[in-house]
Amino acid sequence: MATTAITTYHALTEAEAIALAAELFPEGARLECREIGDGNLNYVFRVSDQESGKGVIIKQALPYAKVVGESWPLTLKRAAIEAAALRKHGEFATGLVPEVYGTDEKLAYTVMEDLSHLTIAREGLIQGKSYPKLSTHIGEYLAQTLFHTSDFALHPFEKKKLAAEFSNPELCKITEDLVFTDPFFDYDTNDFEPELRQAVEAVWRNDALKLEVAKLKRSFLTEAEALLHGDLHTGSIFADDNETKVIDPEFAFYGPIGFDVGLFLANLLVQGITRDGEGRDTIVKHVENTWNVFETRFSELWKSEGIEDFRGVQGYRESVLEKIFRDALGFAGCELIRRTIGLAHVKDLDGIEDAERRIHSKKQALHIGETLIIKRGELASINDVTALLEEL
Amino acid sequence: MATTAITTYHALTEAEAIALAAELFPEGARLECREIGDGNLNYVFRVSDQESGKGVIIKQALPYAKVVGESWPLTLKRAAIEAAALRKHGEFATGLVPEVYGTDEKLAYTVMEDLSHLTIAREGLIQGKSYPKLSTHIGEYLAQTLFHTSDFALHPFEKKKLAAEFSNPELCKITEDLVFTDPFFDYDTNDFEPELRQAVEAVWRNDALKLEVAKLKRSFLTEAEALLHGDLHTGSIFADDNETKVIDPEFAFYGPIGFDVGLFLANLLVQGITRDGEGRDTIVKHVENTWNVFETRFSELWKSEGIEDFRGVQGYRESVLEKIFRDALGFAGCELIRRTIGLAHVKDLDGIEDAERRIHSKKQALHIGETLIIKRGELASINDVTALLEEL
Repeated sequence: MATTAITTYHALTEAEAIALAAELFPEGARLECREIGDGNLNYVFRVSDQESGKGVIIKQALPYAKVVGESWPLTLKRAAIEAAALRKHGEFATGLVPEVYGTDEKLAYTVMEDLSHLTIAREGLIQGKSYPKLSTHIGEYLAQTLFHTSDFALHPFEKKKLAAEFSNPELCKITEDLVFTDPFFDYDTNDFEPELRQAVEAVWRNDALKLEVAKLKRSFLTEAEALLHGDLHTGSIFADDNETKVIDPEFAFYGPIGFDVGLFLANLLVQGITRDGEGRDTIVKHVENTWNVFETRFSELWKSEGIEDFRGVQGYRESVLEKIFRDALGFAGCELIRRTIGLAHVKDLDGIEDAERRIHSKKQALHIGETLIIKRGELASINDVTALLEEL
Repeated sequence: MATTAITTYHALTEAEAIALAAELFPEGARLECREIGDGNLNYVFRVSDQESGKGVIIKQALPYAKVVGESWPLTLKRAAIEAAALRKHGEFATGLVPEVYGTDEKLAYTVMEDLSHLTIAREGLIQGKSYPKLSTHIGEYLAQTLFHTSDFALHPFEKKKLAAEFSNPELCKITEDLVFTDPFFDYDTNDFEPELRQAVEAVWRNDALKLEVAKLKRSFLTEAEALLHGDLHTGSIFADDNETKVIDPEFAFYGPIGFDVGLFLANLLVQGITRDGEGRDTIVKHVENTWNVFETRFSELWKSEGIEDFRGVQGYRESVLEKIFRDALGFAGCELIRRTIGLAHVKDLDGIEDAERRIHSKKQALHIGETLIIKRGELASINDVTALLEEL
């Protein structure tokens, strides 16, 4: 991108957005701009050619976050982290992340591929779409991004350089608090219907559960295994029947591989809870296929591109995958619980209009969440996980 | 320290060393300087007042390492890391690390407390000394430095800042290769007597052992639990009957807590192997006391200074200590093996003049090392560890 004369942060105007994007279009193109973000964390400008209809996206970080009406300061550095993560992951997950055309650290914006022909997977799933390629693509995305940024594929100098570059304390703190801490204590950030109070208080009193959550939090705080997306829920995925694109890695950092895997699985499970019959079967298959594709591709990469001297030792790959599996189930459990009773909910559950059904589904989410955390050492395969959904 | 006009790296002259240290002495003091290092990795200048005899140490890193005749380039940044680690650990382990008076990043030197009234613990132990306070002091040092630099005591912003600051890829690579990799494969860096070949080949063929070493290496590569010393063997400790000072933390980085604990225990065990009768009992007591003091003090700090929301959850502290214990045993096992057949040996074993006794002791070191690695999940307490020594 051309460098601009602008050097201090301000919200971009639509005219500025057009000027920034102009060089990506044919000379003389008639460009228009619309701000299409939800305004909570970022501005999202779509600049497009009025004739061809082709567009690009300029995403600009806001210097604060708005959640449930409140606003607190939030580092602009996240825009640079997001752009760098998109590029790094894009090296490996070909076609599964938007292309980045340019970025500016001071103004905290990234110019990237326009994906407006796709829909946010969470929205589509809620509408009952099946996204037949979603789990194959995400399984592939997980294997490619996580294997290639781990010590299994990178020289330790390169890995430690990346780990330092992707140090992301402010965004990690949000996860540490909202996923791993607050929902398990009677803290003000929590948000749940009175009908759930009894179930929630049971969580707060459940020391066996909290002990396991404490271990999972510790893993999140300390285990720098790979460059994670860090927030891989179905709202961070654009998709249609053929394409899948993972967006918004502003929470990217070096963390435990199972976290990305688990977050995605949890968001499928929460959708599965709201469905029945064939609709639920579709989700069951997506859950199983995500893990199976991930495991298969990770294993192939281990063999074809692994650099670890111990990679050929009998049982090592299996032991690594087993750890990822157990971690993923635990993290998925935390995600299910926090999306039900914590600060940030999901529309899959909150959007259920019938109150009784909504509360019932939320209780099921809590139940599956607790089971995944407590029994993550016992569930033998991904089919044991989907069995939890089928038993509902 | 006064800043000097010198800005590019060169080996300090004795006159320069005196000039650098002068301000720490009374005006007009008659200073003398002696280089007392072994010249492998660092220069060590002792500048002292000819009248009072009081001195200071100036340690300057060499831009290369010499090991068994070879020399390879080695980052000068390690001097800054060492000085920063001494200061950070000194905040918590009062009196157990040398005081740092000043440091210069370009010339890669640190001016610090003179400890020449003490002896290197390894040398003293080989001579049969008992150092009655050694294990109490090191248990305290381990608890204070490791607890206070962990997520259990630090705000995550501060912890992640330190973790990035203490990124130490080059020195970590030495450990990754020499402790966790090379000794377990038929690699050129290994060094052992022909009489050990059969035992060494058994190590190389032992896939069950190598699987566990692979897991331990992975933990070393990924688990950023606390600011480690990183090379806490008995050669990194100055001591006498009353005082103990931990020196040389140039391998400092954020790693698994059990690594520092395990390295120290392994170096006690290797000394214990060479002793019998009362001499061995002294070492047995040191091993047990190190762990017991560490565990007690860590638990006290957990209660008095812990900030983790989950710190009061039933069983969490015990689970953290159990993980540290298991990790420490595994790391100790790797250290025992690499000090016997890897590149860098210890004088405790190599110095045994009688060839048959030396080989026998080395086989015992290998045996205990393998047992600690394979059985680290089963050994129930530190007494089960010292039992391995007493069974010899």
